[in-house]
Amino acid sequence: MTQTRIYLDWNATAPLRPEARAAMTAAWDVVGNPSSVHAEGRAARRLVEDARAIVARATGTSARNVVFTSGGTEANALALAPGLRRPGSEPVQRLVLSAVEHPSVLAGGSFDDTDIVKAPVDAEGVVNLERLHDLLRDGPPTLVSVMLANNETGAIQPIPAIAGIVHEAGGILHVDAVQALSRISCDMNELSADILSISAHKVGGPKGIGALIVRDDVAGLDPLIRGGGQEKGRRAGTENVPGIIGFGAALDVAMERTGVESGRIEALRGRLEAGLANEPGTVIFSRETARLPNTTLAAVPGMKAETAVIGFDLAGIAVSSGSACSSGKVQPSHVLAAMGVPVELARGAIRISLGWNTSESDVDRFLQTWRTLAGTLGNKMIRTGA
Amino acid sequence: MTQTRIYLDWNATAPLRPEARAAMTAAWDVVGNPSSVHAEGRAARRLVEDARAIVARATGTSARNVVFTSGGTEANALALAPGLRRPGSEPVQRLVLSAVEHPSVLAGGSFDDTDIVKAPVDAEGVVNLERLHDLLRDGPPTLVSVMLANNETGAIQPIPAIAGIVHEAGGILHVDAVQALSRISCDMNELSADILSISAHKVGGPKGIGALIVRDDVAGLDPLIRGGGQEKGRRAGTENVPGIIGFGAALDVAMERTGVESGRIEALRGRLEAGLANEPGTVIFSRETARLPNTTLAAVPGMKAETAVIGFDLAGIAVSSGSACSSGKVQPSHVLAAMGVPVELARGAIRISLGWNTSESDVDRFLQTWRTLAGTLGNKMIRTGA
Repeated sequence: MTQTRIYLDWNATAPLRPEARAAMTAAWDVVGNPSSVHAEGRAARRLVEDARAIVARATGTSARNVVFTSGGTEANALALAPGLRRPGSEPVQRLVLSAVEHPSVLAGGSFDDTDIVKAPVDAEGVVNLERLHDLLRDGPPTLVSVMLANNETGAIQPIPAIAGIVHEAGGILHVDAVQALSRISCDMNELSADILSISAHKVGGPKGIGALIVRDDVAGLDPLIRGGGQEKGRRAGTENVPGIIGFGAALDVAMERTGVESGRIEALRGRLEAGLANEPGTVIFSRETARLPNTTLAAVPGMKAETAVIGFDLAGIAVSSGSACSSGKVQPSHVLAAMGVPVELARGAIRISLGWNTSESDVDRFLQTWRTLAGTLGNKMIRTGA
Repeated sequence: MTQTRIYLDWNATAPLRPEARAAMTAAWDVVGNPSSVHAEGRAARRLVEDARAIVARATGTSARNVVFTSGGTEANALALAPGLRRPGSEPVQRLVLSAVEHPSVLAGGSFDDTDIVKAPVDAEGVVNLERLHDLLRDGPPTLVSVMLANNETGAIQPIPAIAGIVHEAGGILHVDAVQALSRISCDMNELSADILSISAHKVGGPKGIGALIVRDDVAGLDPLIRGGGQEKGRRAGTENVPGIIGFGAALDVAMERTGVESGRIEALRGRLEAGLANEPGTVIFSRETARLPNTTLAAVPGMKAETAVIGFDLAGIAVSSGSACSSGKVQPSHVLAAMGVPVELARGAIRISLGWNTSESDVDRFLQTWRTLAGTLGNKMIRTGA
């Protein structure tokens, strides 16, 4: 008997929105290279610039601030470079990042390892503002990178407060908003962020496209990929026209529906977590702080996440053990480690992330399977002392 | 009266092949992130690895040698880095590149400008082997970058001979095969190339995806984009699954049809050039050396390319003034300058590049328009002494 599969791994990647499919299919007939001056090239250029305007609107910026990249990881790599500065000021000399950043930020871009400092988080995974303040005091000009929402726990960082601290110290704030985009506001004015990374495939656009948004009062962006005039010299290479178009189309509809979708998803997540709370021993991480409406990271003591993910998969449900970015790596989450979660509990953390087509019955079937698996894998392990 | 448009700018970008559309449309239903362990993730992984095998086959290498990138420009940027070495040998310390390389190679990757040396070409645009030999003699370990076929003239470099010289000097040879792929053989064994850059959108795949192929006996590849385990740690970021699939599908059919398509296109190019030769004063560049079967770069003395491209566009024909990679830049081609072409003549160079759906009547309509424009723009300018 084949059962319909249930996809609850939206933070790894979201299904492509129908609007993105339609826009990309139409764009396939636009043959030109956007750098070409003929009608075919100009048509491609128009599509790219329409999408750029959508990205700018979604982030409260201007089209000129948007640099399309091949995704969030490249956007982060491009952002994290010594040389960034306020016009008229000295370039940044070091990078301070929160301990719970995505691996693409933890990699530190083109900073030397010796110039990278980690800012600690509390037990909910939120940056300790006092410690951040201390770190920046009396130091050289600093680039600070803090994500808007965590990919594993969904925890939302207090970016406006962090921006206040960074700016008071004369620093520049980069915000990885990949998981936050369209789920909560990513308006750069509201956030007071200077640089923002976003990605299409988390909002229902295609994989392989993202953007870095750089405000006018940040200078010194050093291109990672050079050799053509594209993206105003900030990122060379023929534009990923279908990707950019799909990004624009998905983001446009995602932004339009943010309120409705987020409310519905948050209610579903409430149902999910109420169900999980009924299971003895279940822990939900970052539950005491503001989180994305769609994300739950939960563990049963003694349950191993790798085993559980396979158990869910066999039961027709796709969930994740923390982040999907480190294929094949079986090691406890650096996010939970930074939050002080004991390694035995962290090893059992399962991420359930919902999206616009998740239904109540999906949640109920997940809970039913969780009860079975937690009973089999979790308690058995506790019983055997593992 | 609207006339069907004629697209003769295949070297800027090729129309998407129907096979690529079909493959990408099907793949849109595969929701997973290839790094996820569940069924959805494994299905995405399989599609990526199938495409990787196609790329490996097309270049005479193994799947493990293929690193997917966001395109040819990123592949070149990734390739051109100090640190590359033969296992057991010293890393390369300088970069020698031909004077006619694509701007993404001329940018020099992460080499310092002072460590980059240009190798001259002859009047046909072919690397001077004796001068290359002299440049490499007694120097430190060197990375040499020479394109297989030029994007503007179509001139093919004698890569096996160049590889002999580079390897004799203990160097490593990178070959930008972006324009050559599927038009002529890009088998790395036949070429004796160590590293190869290719791009999907030149073979009828989507824009925004390419690959760098690195042979087993090259070590020290320094990732440009870090933070995840993707591409065996050589290129982080969620894989561009639809792009990779479209690349594979387009390349598969392009390779299968290379013989037939190239023969037909070369015959069409012969018809084109026979027609051009009838026009007094017309010059065809690199005509005395081996060229790609689909490319013609031609000029009429006194004709300005920018004006002519607009004239062709108004007549419903898309052609290019040299490369499309430097949008808005009106300056004579560095390729023709390196070949010693006088700047007045270089200013008039129009690139006509053909592809699998180009027809005889397309060529004939182009020639008709060329005669009109050359008569109006070329001769008039000569008459007025411009």
